[in-house]
Order: sequence, then structure tokens, then C-alpha cells
Amino acid sequence: MSFPESAITKLLESVAFDSDGLVAAIAQRHETGEVLMLAWMNADAVRETLATGRVTYWSRSRRSLWRKGETSGHIQTLRSIRIDCDGDALLLGVDQTGAACHTNRSSCFFREVAEDGLVEISKPLED
Amino acid sequence: MSFPESAITKLLESVAFDSDGLVAAIAQRHETGEVLMLAWMNADAVRETLATGRVTYWSRSRRSLWRKGETSGHIQTLRSIRIDCDGDALLLGVDQTGAACHTNRSSCFFREVAEDGLVEISKPLED
Repeated sequence: MSFPESAITKLLESVAFDSDGLVAAIAQRHETGEVLMLAWMNADAVRETLATGRVTYWSRSRRSLWRKGETSGHIQTLRSIRIDCDGDALLLGVDQTGAACHTNRSSCFFREVAEDGLVEISKPLED
Repeated sequence: MSFPESAITKLLESVAFDSDGLVAAIAQRHETGEVLMLAWMNADAVRETLATGRVTYWSRSRRSLWRKGETSGHIQTLRSIRIDCDGDALLLGVDQTGAACHTNRSSCFFREVAEDGLVEISKPLED
């Protein structure tokens, strides 16, 4: 799903970017509610995501736009985008192609605390 | 759900706290998968949350521990806690008493981008 410039402007006006010009973005699988990952967006990433319907983040390590899936093919297609009460977090509803995690697991949140430490709760997807 | 000291230590060893000593924490309703809020934890907040089973964040504005619900009664009871692949985000499965949002809405993510701007997709809960 993509959005017209007027909607993009309205959203950008409501985002409280941090001192690095970033906002946290949670990606959630639209169909199931599975939380896939947490990443960051700058204004350009927000704008590109809404204009194209393909989710783009800001890579803090590479200091560049990160078009999710551009090398892996594991793209995220935007279905909805919400903003929280104080404007410093976005919640993306997405259709995820393949794995969201670079470890090839469905979600980046694949380690859970148990009585005796961390346990892996999902395995890498088969290719 | 609470955890023994050994499990807390294992988790803390895996968290990549940022330069302010914080890690992002997403709260998700355990029963439904609804994403409720994004907040921050320091090591003390992580420790207290796991030791007590009552979710405690770090308030960046007040610069103090924020025992969610201590004034509103809208507490979060921990059901599970996961960590992402690079250790800089936590995903909490919680039972939420009342509203998660200070606006008395179920979730802080109550504004969604539509063609013509932002629309409110949920109303404050009745008291």
C-alpha cells in the first residue's frame, strides 16, 4: 500500500524524530500479528516507504537507506502504518517475503528467556 | 512470570545496551498479539521486570525507573520475554490491566495513516 504526498506530510509532521533524526519502527506481520523486527527510519526512509509501499529503513551501522530485501529478496510490503501517542515509534503492518531475520528465521525475536537461560524458539526457514 | 537470577544474568549478558545504557522494549498483548507500546529499559529495569514479573521501564523524561501502572493501576504482568538477533531490542509478552496508553486507549498506536492523513482507529476505554 502506498500513500499520497499529503498523507506522507501529515505523518512526518507528527513524528518526533530523535536527536539523530531517527524514529523506531516495529514491523509486525499483517496476517498473524507476529512481531518481526525493530529497526529505525529517518525522514527519507519514512517518505520512501509510504510513497512506494516497499519498506525502507535507515541502517545505523552503514549510515544509509536500507531497502529491506534488496540483497536477500526478503522484502516487506506495507499494509498499514501507525504512530504512537508521543510520536516516537511507528508500527508497520507488513507482508513479509521469506524470513525477516538475517539468520533466515521468520522473526528476529527467536530467543526467549527460560528458567535456565535463553532458548531458541524457532529454526531457520528452509530455502 | 518471574525468573531466577541465573536467567536474568544470561539475558543481561546478551543485551547490547546503547550509549545511554538503554534497550528498546516492545510490549505485546500475550493473548491477542496486539502491540501496545514501545518503551525503554536500563539494566535495572530489565532485572526488576524479570525478578518480579511486573514490567518496569526506564523513563527517559523523568530519568527514573517507571513501574508501569504504579499510578494508573494499569500494570503489565510479564508472560514471556524475547531478545532479537543483535540484542538491541526486547519483545515482552504481557497481560495488560486496563489501557496501555496514557490516553486510556488499549494501545499507544491508535493513529493510522490513511489517504487523507492520520485517523484514530480506537477510542479511549470506558472506565
